[in-house]
Amino acid sequence: MITVQEAEKLILDSIGSIETEEIALEKALGRCLRESVLADRSLPPFDRATMDGIAINSSSYNTGLRKFKICGTAAAGSPQEALSDLKSAMEIMTGAALPLHADCVVKIEDVEIKGGKALLPDGLKLDFHTAVHSQASDCKTGDELLSPNVKISAKEIAIAASVGKSKLLVSKTPKITIVSTGDELVSIDQIPESHQIRRSNDATLGAALESAGFQEVNLVHIPDDPEQIETELRQILSSCDALILAGGVSKGKFDYVPEILAKLGVSIRFQWVSQRPGKPMWYGQFSRDGSRLPVFALPGNPVSCFTCLRRYVVPALEKWLQMPASKPVYAKISHDMSFKQELTLFVPAMIESRPSGELWAKPLLFNTSGDFISVAKTDGFLELPRGRKVFPEGEAFVFYPWPR
Amino acid sequence: MITVQEAEKLILDSIGSIETEEIALEKALGRCLRESVLADRSLPPFDRATMDGIAINSSSYNTGLRKFKICGTAAAGSPQEALSDLKSAMEIMTGAALPLHADCVVKIEDVEIKGGKALLPDGLKLDFHTAVHSQASDCKTGDELLSPNVKISAKEIAIAASVGKSKLLVSKTPKITIVSTGDELVSIDQIPESHQIRRSNDATLGAALESAGFQEVNLVHIPDDPEQIETELRQILSSCDALILAGGVSKGKFDYVPEILAKLGVSIRFQWVSQRPGKPMWYGQFSRDGSRLPVFALPGNPVSCFTCLRRYVVPALEKWLQMPASKPVYAKISHDMSFKQELTLFVPAMIESRPSGELWAKPLLFNTSGDFISVAKTDGFLELPRGRKVFPEGEAFVFYPWPR
Repeated sequence: MITVQEAEKLILDSIGSIETEEIALEKALGRCLRESVLADRSLPPFDRATMDGIAINSSSYNTGLRKFKICGTAAAGSPQEALSDLKSAMEIMTGAALPLHADCVVKIEDVEIKGGKALLPDGLKLDFHTAVHSQASDCKTGDELLSPNVKISAKEIAIAASVGKSKLLVSKTPKITIVSTGDELVSIDQIPESHQIRRSNDATLGAALESAGFQEVNLVHIPDDPEQIETELRQILSSCDALILAGGVSKGKFDYVPEILAKLGVSIRFQWVSQRPGKPMWYGQFSRDGSRLPVFALPGNPVSCFTCLRRYVVPALEKWLQMPASKPVYAKISHDMSFKQELTLFVPAMIESRPSGELWAKPLLFNTSGDFISVAKTDGFLELPRGRKVFPEGEAFVFYPWPR
Repeated sequence: MITVQEAEKLILDSIGSIETEEIALEKALGRCLRESVLADRSLPPFDRATMDGIAINSSSYNTGLRKFKICGTAAAGSPQEALSDLKSAMEIMTGAALPLHADCVVKIEDVEIKGGKALLPDGLKLDFHTAVHSQASDCKTGDELLSPNVKISAKEIAIAASVGKSKLLVSKTPKITIVSTGDELVSIDQIPESHQIRRSNDATLGAALESAGFQEVNLVHIPDDPEQIETELRQILSSCDALILAGGVSKGKFDYVPEILAKLGVSIRFQWVSQRPGKPMWYGQFSRDGSRLPVFALPGNPVSCFTCLRRYVVPALEKWLQMPASKPVYAKISHDMSFKQELTLFVPAMIESRPSGELWAKPLLFNTSGDFISVAKTDGFLELPRGRKVFPEGEAFVFYPWPR
């Protein structure tokens, strides 16, 4: 049995880097960028008005001129205009290029326009580039605006669009297969017999992966029959990019899965982790065409399964895609807790951001069942480290939000 | 000009509730649940083994019996078995129904099996329902397991699946149209002239809405021509469920949008908000077929536009869908800041969860440009309230994460 930290390290160290593909910008949301995005020109490309008003030369105002002849209009999207002389002004719109000979913009609220003249009051503070966004002040041609290995959100779309990247190099989307086993499980739309329960692990894991950004997930259920499990897993391993099994990995008489995986050539990295829930968790790798596919076998208990997915599988798949590792979130525990076993304890908890700026986590006590009913009210889980017995109110521990 | 709080209240108070539709469970991720989900039977439906091992009657062990005859195997998914007598044991798998006459499970690690007998050591703590998840301990038939008006995540999928809800009643997905205006804007794949810039607002807003869970977003660009704007907006208002305009709402000569919206019958709720960025922000409603569609006109500056979308539009659309309001997040500001104007200040900031359990926000200073280049490195923005001039290091303010 290995520790949570050892299991995490074994998994992450074994994970390589998935291949890349080029996709259209409008499909790139949520994907992992795998190239640098450079400025194709300076930004802003010209001295740009940041307000609606009039463009003038500030030295004329600062040497006493208050009445400027209006010589035209500079609209956003039109080529650069020019003042006819230093005593003239030009109406200008936000986003327009500052006219030649002008060096600042006076906002419309400060201007009175009358008979083709702009009248300015005393006391305005006008200097070089007042209300002007100077050319090249944001970036110069060739500057790296986005680095590789970021998750593409709306902000990254904004930058890519502004420099004309209508296609982006991103990580491929892995084809993930989730396999559930267990003869006690019937499908969602069946009425179970009293000794049966409905199959929910596969749909839950699929939804969790989808909300973590993995869209290509395939769900398969196999009865507890060793031959059938072997046949179907062989087939799946020949085509998927990652395999996640739910159930069948404990010490029960019908827990054939580890043996069959070994027989199919999946090399085991570990089987038992000193954690609750989720002790019987199996991780291995399968070599195919020069790459190593991750194979996770998670305990069948729904909460164990979900916790292990969040704690190990999602970070591993994100690393495979070259996503940056999520920064840890720390939350103070809102109740004294004690736990005497030599296991890392994952406690589902409700999170609360307090007006003080502190994050507090209220642990779900007395949850021993493994069912989702009370866990559904929580926001994630606290990780209470192994080797301690007491976790006093107010001490902060790492908190893992559920996929949402 | 109204305050941020007044604008927020005017918007939220005016928003109704969108219609519902029934969809398949596997399509329900991210949607807003609009019905109660009830337990269709008690859970667990039977006394359920939580470990692999043997099922016995604890009183036999506690009165001295250490050697139990094995009378069979209880597998998960099989109908309930029965011990042949109180001195017998049955091998049992996690998830199986506890056999009749048995009242606890001894985990496999504590059992030695030899010649058809299970040998138990002294000193085990065995009681009624040790390692058994008692029938109906999670819920009883008819209990409400999920309430209406929650966002459906993997956890809610788990519960719906477990009670056999293969279809769910959810909020309809609104058809949102984003209209950008501005003649200075060219499409992403064009090489702009020096006075032009590429159009990025529409793609950015679309991506932000998509990551906030709004999938049906349509992007339209209209040149700065009043007649064309009027014609196209009339058409759009006759078919979309919500309209968001980017640009054309300031005080510039070519900012026709508010006038045209009024002419088309959109009733204005407000136009100016005492905030930076985003002062020229327009909100109104359009009545069609007995419902009132929200119409937002956001400033054209990319960062203003994005900030207003996050601060006002996303919460309004979420309320329309009957999503629960997001709980506020508070973060301590990591630098002294001062701001003298009578405006609420939205400051883009990087967020850091410290091991103490405190959340800190590092504001992006000197960002006056409205461009995304430095904003892309931030995680959201702090809202620094109007009416104060000094915001000292360590004081907590509300933080709005960017859509991601």
